[in-house]
Amino acid sequence: MTSPPTSSGASRRGRPGYDREGLLTVCVETFNRHGYDATSMGALSRELGISKSAIYHHVSSKEEILDIALNRSLAELERVVSDAAAPGAPAVQELETIIRESVKVLTGSLPYVTLLLRLRGNSELEVKALQRRREITLRIAELIREAQRDGDLREDVDARTASRLAMGMVNSIVDWYRPQGGQPDDALADTVMRLLLDGLRTQRP
Amino acid sequence: MTSPPTSSGASRRGRPGYDREGLLTVCVETFNRHGYDATSMGALSRELGISKSAIYHHVSSKEEILDIALNRSLAELERVVSDAAAPGAPAVQELETIIRESVKVLTGSLPYVTLLLRLRGNSELEVKALQRRREITLRIAELIREAQRDGDLREDVDARTASRLAMGMVNSIVDWYRPQGGQPDDALADTVMRLLLDGLRTQRP
Repeated sequence: MTSPPTSSGASRRGRPGYDREGLLTVCVETFNRHGYDATSMGALSRELGISKSAIYHHVSSKEEILDIALNRSLAELERVVSDAAAPGAPAVQELETIIRESVKVLTGSLPYVTLLLRLRGNSELEVKALQRRREITLRIAELIREAQRDGDLREDVDARTASRLAMGMVNSIVDWYRPQGGQPDDALADTVMRLLLDGLRTQRP
Repeated sequence: MTSPPTSSGASRRGRPGYDREGLLTVCVETFNRHGYDATSMGALSRELGISKSAIYHHVSSKEEILDIALNRSLAELERVVSDAAAPGAPAVQELETIIRESVKVLTGSLPYVTLLLRLRGNSELEVKALQRRREITLRIAELIREAQRDGDLREDVDARTASRLAMGMVNSIVDWYRPQGGQPDDALADTVMRLLLDGLRTQRP
């Protein structure tokens, strides 16, 4: 999410001010501030300070901007899940990694994940993105179920519900977090992981 | 949130189809589906199947509808906090009550709380509502701090962060919960409370 703006003349197409990356950044921020549906290409043009036709040099439609932005955060989150897979290791360990790394993606790529999490499924594109999010939650539910069978996680909480609540806590970070230069927040990632696994209560011996 | 539709002729003003309560219900659902900003009075009129002037018999503006709806869920949540106060009882107990009762408000008044939680602060009214939400989170942070001093909650988690994460988990319920006839969900309330206090991990003796 923090790839540097491309400076190649080809991607700028001779237009000063924005390369594709910079344009995307402003559009995502505008969507987050006013909502995707409420933001017209005209509004993006005003926000960017360039004409609509200048925007069309980079992308074919408002929906394409959304598509690129969503795909970016989803790909990052999906990579967290696939990278966490450790054959032979206990499921609870895989789960801890996913929680920790997800928080790092959120804090490091805040605007993109914020956009993803605020979708309501108002178009086919949004429905597909929500489906990809759901796959991640389902995989986490599966891991919780496995860890319950291993005796590592308590069994008096339904795995699907626990998965939703855990990801709910993780995702809620976008509502208050102030990004620190696009850097992942390791300390917060640890806090969330410990809170979800061990709870707020003092562990009494 | 589940007050029965008023059937008095006065509140209907002779117009069939909607009393104020019924009108509010449809408007809140429409806001939740398309976003408040993206919903015009014209869209509400189409959704309700009545003219705009018929809507103006009940309310003076779209913003008044939002105001009534937000005030309703905020008042409920604020009552949870004030009702939980138990002088002499440990802070952790007050905290448990607030978490449990908040989940009940969410599940019992889902559309109203959903509307509240999706606000972005785009107007003075929204900013004020967000401020009232913040007061609740601050009170919870205070209780966490007290419970940490009592030795009931672990001290390696910042109280403000813990408060935000806890309420984040509670609030995330609106994203997936299917309401059950406007009834508060006691079982889910217990699950969330236990998860937040004791975590997912098996308590080893």
